[in-house]
Amino acid sequence: MTSPAFRLLATCPETGARAGELATPHGAVPTPVFAPVGSQGTVKTLTPADLKELKAALILANTYHLYLRPGIEVIARLGGLHRFMAWDGPILTDSGGYQLFSLATLSKVSDDGVLFRSHIDGSEHFLTPEKVIECQEKLGADIIMVLDQPLPYTEDIRQVQAAMERTQRWAERCRSSHHRADQAPSTGSGQALYGIVQGGTFPELRRQSAAGLTALDFPGYAIGGLGLGERKEQTLAIVAETVSYLPEDRPRYLMGIGSPEDVIEAIARGVDMFDCALPTRVARNGAFFTRDGRQNIRNAVYKDREAPLDSTCGCYTCRTFSAAYVHHLFKCEELLAYRLTTLHNLHFLLGLVREARDAIVNGTFPSFRKEFISSYRATSEEVRLEQKRRWLAVGRIRNAGS
Amino acid sequence: MTSPAFRLLATCPETGARAGELATPHGAVPTPVFAPVGSQGTVKTLTPADLKELKAALILANTYHLYLRPGIEVIARLGGLHRFMAWDGPILTDSGGYQLFSLATLSKVSDDGVLFRSHIDGSEHFLTPEKVIECQEKLGADIIMVLDQPLPYTEDIRQVQAAMERTQRWAERCRSSHHRADQAPSTGSGQALYGIVQGGTFPELRRQSAAGLTALDFPGYAIGGLGLGERKEQTLAIVAETVSYLPEDRPRYLMGIGSPEDVIEAIARGVDMFDCALPTRVARNGAFFTRDGRQNIRNAVYKDREAPLDSTCGCYTCRTFSAAYVHHLFKCEELLAYRLTTLHNLHFLLGLVREARDAIVNGTFPSFRKEFISSYRATSEEVRLEQKRRWLAVGRIRNAGS
Repeated sequence: MTSPAFRLLATCPETGARAGELATPHGAVPTPVFAPVGSQGTVKTLTPADLKELKAALILANTYHLYLRPGIEVIARLGGLHRFMAWDGPILTDSGGYQLFSLATLSKVSDDGVLFRSHIDGSEHFLTPEKVIECQEKLGADIIMVLDQPLPYTEDIRQVQAAMERTQRWAERCRSSHHRADQAPSTGSGQALYGIVQGGTFPELRRQSAAGLTALDFPGYAIGGLGLGERKEQTLAIVAETVSYLPEDRPRYLMGIGSPEDVIEAIARGVDMFDCALPTRVARNGAFFTRDGRQNIRNAVYKDREAPLDSTCGCYTCRTFSAAYVHHLFKCEELLAYRLTTLHNLHFLLGLVREARDAIVNGTFPSFRKEFISSYRATSEEVRLEQKRRWLAVGRIRNAGS
Repeated sequence: MTSPAFRLLATCPETGARAGELATPHGAVPTPVFAPVGSQGTVKTLTPADLKELKAALILANTYHLYLRPGIEVIARLGGLHRFMAWDGPILTDSGGYQLFSLATLSKVSDDGVLFRSHIDGSEHFLTPEKVIECQEKLGADIIMVLDQPLPYTEDIRQVQAAMERTQRWAERCRSSHHRADQAPSTGSGQALYGIVQGGTFPELRRQSAAGLTALDFPGYAIGGLGLGERKEQTLAIVAETVSYLPEDRPRYLMGIGSPEDVIEAIARGVDMFDCALPTRVARNGAFFTRDGRQNIRNAVYKDREAPLDSTCGCYTCRTFSAAYVHHLFKCEELLAYRLTTLHNLHFLLGLVREARDAIVNGTFPSFRKEFISSYRATSEEVRLEQKRRWLAVGRIRNAGS
């Protein structure tokens, strides 16, 4: 299968950054693109109207979460995920591989599939590659993902190889059980199934994984299993390495990475698509992005501040409220607080990615990148909190075994 | 002082229901009016843009809450409450009398004032009638309230009389320390200070309280101390009784009452203004209003329901989502859930009050009222929950002594 769905418009010769456009049944997605995360069928605190105002071009939902609640059949009976969420733009569903291995209690993992207990009520379920595809066909997202087995960072190459090879076998079964691609709607493109490259921090395993998947000719390829305990330099090195094994004419999707600095650096390495809960999750914790780095509105310096979160920002929050007001809402644990910082962070990141795209098209990406990276600093406290959280998740996966 | 700020436009001859218009420095308020409650400077879950879309004509904030957080001086330095909340429409601030006697830990209550400990951090504070007026002048709301002493329902007439007489003495001191009324802005009306009628369920005490306050010539009069343990028939009887002692040409404001059925019945007794946390609080608990009564979206019957919460409703929630989706959000405890039902309940109640006003103007209020009351039923579970909550608050006040 060819992928007329993806058009490359410009490539930065110095870095490999790309600007393109992805056709989907629910409209075109300019790339690079960041997809806000709405695991349970809602980007936390926001309505579809908010997301339109933010010009979100693609949003993500999660098969594992929706399978457990409200159930795939419920959404199917109600006309599919777009109608359920009242979002008529493009949607990507993750297969839930990561969630199975990090949230659920695993009972038995074999090539057949995954026997697990729900993290919500302990009920037992069995998911196979075929079942995961069936679920995603019923949800009806524009882009869906194969079932994969991510691993936390480890230096045990045999463990990483085994998970990568299982991911390859599962990808083959997903590929052959996916039929909805053929039901191309009037837009000329059907539901697209992407493969997921695994292989940890081992270049040779990443190469084998990419080779195995490209042989199956997916319309797009994800890079999975990163941001799970390896050092940041390793993450970016493996991104660059993996990108080099992927076909030019297919979109490349880096899963679960979404801090502003990581997004810009990954774009510079040829990545086209991103999703990550970080911008919305840290927002609910009071952290907000500015060009100078990440700040936290709970900090006492904001108690009296008449200026908005960021004077250069045009989001609803910054157009409307003083930082002192947002600080007050956080101090009072008012629900509006979480929405206001969520709006700000998504406005920041979606705007940043649009700027990066413009810079690629205009041939100014290297200076744009340099300028951004030199001024942007995550505060040490924020980075520490995030690392702690990530390690907790990693610990869960590790304990679950393979 | 006369009150050119209030114009009566129509009165229902059968019931005494009135339609009018209240001029304020931030615009006209059509009456009857329901004011959504934003105690801490935010109507929970909503932005000012949401409130505009709901056509809220007046919102309420609370002096006690804002005094404790972020502090009156902070808001004053930031340009006052309107700017702080980014709400350029009319605002009413309650004095915090009710909160002092229900939320704070009272240390010493005398004619001088109230020595209390904050319900947030236990810090000690002393508030007097003069101080409460000074706070409200600094906040700069369009309508402010005297400091009063509400009591929970009791048959001890001496206790009720003592609290009513203290409320009268405090009202006199509030009246003479209020200066901002003279600083009339270009709209022709300054900040208006309303008196609060107390007297429990004793008609004679209500008469004395109304007489004492009207002698002070307030531009508006509130009916306080109701909905605190007395039977519902008593509430409405006392409302009718108290209204009969109040001047025709001043707005009458029933404090803390806001279920749809109570609002319509109080309008029928000549009340012009309402505030209540009930519609927004029960919304966050999953309860939503329909013309058939109160329902709860957590109920399993909604798991599969493709129709909106209310097929006859034009709010954003009902225009956009199935009941099944809102049910799902509640089951997952997603933050968007609380906003969607809040939008619905305020849309319902604000619309209901607008309809009541139109009916008064058109001379059809009696049939409108009859039709509404005959179809509207609060579910027994909801009523029970609400009563339980009210009794808890009443217990707090009772334990605080007088």
